[in-house]
Amino acid sequence: MSIVTALPVAELTDRIEEIFRKAGLSIAQSAAIARVIAAGEQDACKSHGIYRIEGCLRTLKAGKVVPCAEPVAVADGSAIVRVDARQGFAPLAFEIGLPHLVERTRALGLAALVINDCTHFSALWPEVEALTERGLAGLALCPSYSAVAPAGGQRPLFGTNPMAFGWPRPSGAPYVFDFATSMVARGEIELHRRAGQPIPEGWAIDTEGAPATDPERALAGALLPFGGHKGSAISTMIELLGGPMIGDFTSAEALGVLGSTSLLPRHGELILAFDVEQFARGRPGDPLARAEVLFDAILGQGARLPSQRRFAARARTEVEGIPLTAAELEQLDRFARLGLDALP
Amino acid sequence: MSIVTALPVAELTDRIEEIFRKAGLSIAQSAAIARVIAAGEQDACKSHGIYRIEGCLRTLKAGKVVPCAEPVAVADGSAIVRVDARQGFAPLAFEIGLPHLVERTRALGLAALVINDCTHFSALWPEVEALTERGLAGLALCPSYSAVAPAGGQRPLFGTNPMAFGWPRPSGAPYVFDFATSMVARGEIELHRRAGQPIPEGWAIDTEGAPATDPERALAGALLPFGGHKGSAISTMIELLGGPMIGDFTSAEALGVLGSTSLLPRHGELILAFDVEQFARGRPGDPLARAEVLFDAILGQGARLPSQRRFAARARTEVEGIPLTAAELEQLDRFARLGLDALP
Repeated sequence: MSIVTALPVAELTDRIEEIFRKAGLSIAQSAAIARVIAAGEQDACKSHGIYRIEGCLRTLKAGKVVPCAEPVAVADGSAIVRVDARQGFAPLAFEIGLPHLVERTRALGLAALVINDCTHFSALWPEVEALTERGLAGLALCPSYSAVAPAGGQRPLFGTNPMAFGWPRPSGAPYVFDFATSMVARGEIELHRRAGQPIPEGWAIDTEGAPATDPERALAGALLPFGGHKGSAISTMIELLGGPMIGDFTSAEALGVLGSTSLLPRHGELILAFDVEQFARGRPGDPLARAEVLFDAILGQGARLPSQRRFAARARTEVEGIPLTAAELEQLDRFARLGLDALP
Repeated sequence: MSIVTALPVAELTDRIEEIFRKAGLSIAQSAAIARVIAAGEQDACKSHGIYRIEGCLRTLKAGKVVPCAEPVAVADGSAIVRVDARQGFAPLAFEIGLPHLVERTRALGLAALVINDCTHFSALWPEVEALTERGLAGLALCPSYSAVAPAGGQRPLFGTNPMAFGWPRPSGAPYVFDFATSMVARGEIELHRRAGQPIPEGWAIDTEGAPATDPERALAGALLPFGGHKGSAISTMIELLGGPMIGDFTSAEALGVLGSTSLLPRHGELILAFDVEQFARGRPGDPLARAEVLFDAILGQGARLPSQRRFAARARTEVEGIPLTAAELEQLDRFARLGLDALP
């Protein structure tokens, strides 16, 4: 693909915002979504960049998300902050809940943000990075919709159920991981399908439960969890904590409500925040300095830290802008011009 | 091996307690340890049963654990309960902290128990099951000592870093998983070594970083994390939350202090507890009943729930007693007779 234009981050953000305004979203909703999608592009994380716009628009057009939802946060004396997303997209709901989560975490050492009734489409790292930027550690998780068979099972039940963790670092980028608890994200198989490429064995099974290497058959069948029964157990935990515990959909229920995996999942989300300094209080050593020794030891034996590639891309795109192909730019223009009418 | 005796659980517990009393532990320490080791045997979890006694005694004899430590719990208005184990074994420290953790969790919805300066030798499931018995969900984790190379690395850095999760079920056994974030627990390789059996490829690397199937070479080299870079990231998270964050040893530091992997790891532990009812409050549906739908769906497609085998063994041994070989009984007798003098 030939790169024709490098857009500054701010300019791309504006264009994405314009698209969602045209599609009927409120100013606040559009701005929050645009920030998250632009952040994906800025980090060269294409599967969570502008590629996601079409899915958002499709879900809007299907009437499955409330375009001008005004999320409401409720915080009390407890460690649980609740945000009712009112069936809008997740990013604004998170932004509304964040200051309350930070306040509760500083007050108690540990707190949780529960987001209910939101439509999710983005990675979780923007959320845990919002915590690390404030000096907190964070763990975020949510179900999605049934696409993954439990280890030893035959049919989709779990979602790709992502889990992200962030730890603040005194200088530079935080320690962050964010991954699907399936072998790969569903979007990864979708990208292979679009590129006409087979997928490696072990990623998925077909409708008969047999190993699938054809992306079409894999998408019709079931993804597999990462790490065998251990990954399957973690995915179950994500269903429980991000579903029944917070009174929101499991992945199976979300699929039942939507009736299709081609729309974005509606569900809840759980984010835990840890006040590192408060946990470490009264104990010897500075927790952040001690964590650096661990990171140095990982890097010192030639292993990588997760998200390193993402942070390197961020440093690059900040200077050089975000490279977009002619086809990508044309699509952005078409979406901005036609809004929901751009969809078939 | 011929089974000669089936001991009732209470009788085995008494015998183990006697061993630790003989070895110089206080009544409270001995009783807490005996309960945990007997629970391992009761669940046919041999790698965490009486097999562990020798390691405990060895660590005592080496002067690396305080035999009559009186753990002290501190709870304030925050979500963090701290227990100073005072360099004793973990089980009593957990028991001392538990009521405070339960109180804080009921008060705030979410709370953490931090155990510092303890010597750990047991599985984590007894701890998360103590929470599920009280209607709470729980997540427990701790570093151990360097034995696992990070994905893409060459040398031991992480511990086998176990992680356990429990969810209460209205009837019968809870949902519980408890696993090492290495491909296998170190004890698993140790059992292969004793049995003179090779280990499967993928479990470990030798001192040169090459795949190892010889248990001796594997124990001299490094274990591998489960699930590639994802498991490696989770293991890193466990180091951070259960090490620097709570002001306690990382796995590398624990090994540095002990100087040997043949002694039990000294470190801290983090246990999170969730008040499921409080998280779900105001939302539709009963969280525990909704979770059962998920479990039914897992079992309904032929997959298993973790710990099923353990719970089946528990039901069996409760009726039939715990089967012990003549060699095992002889060792128990020898330990009870000689205490620390039973060791070379």
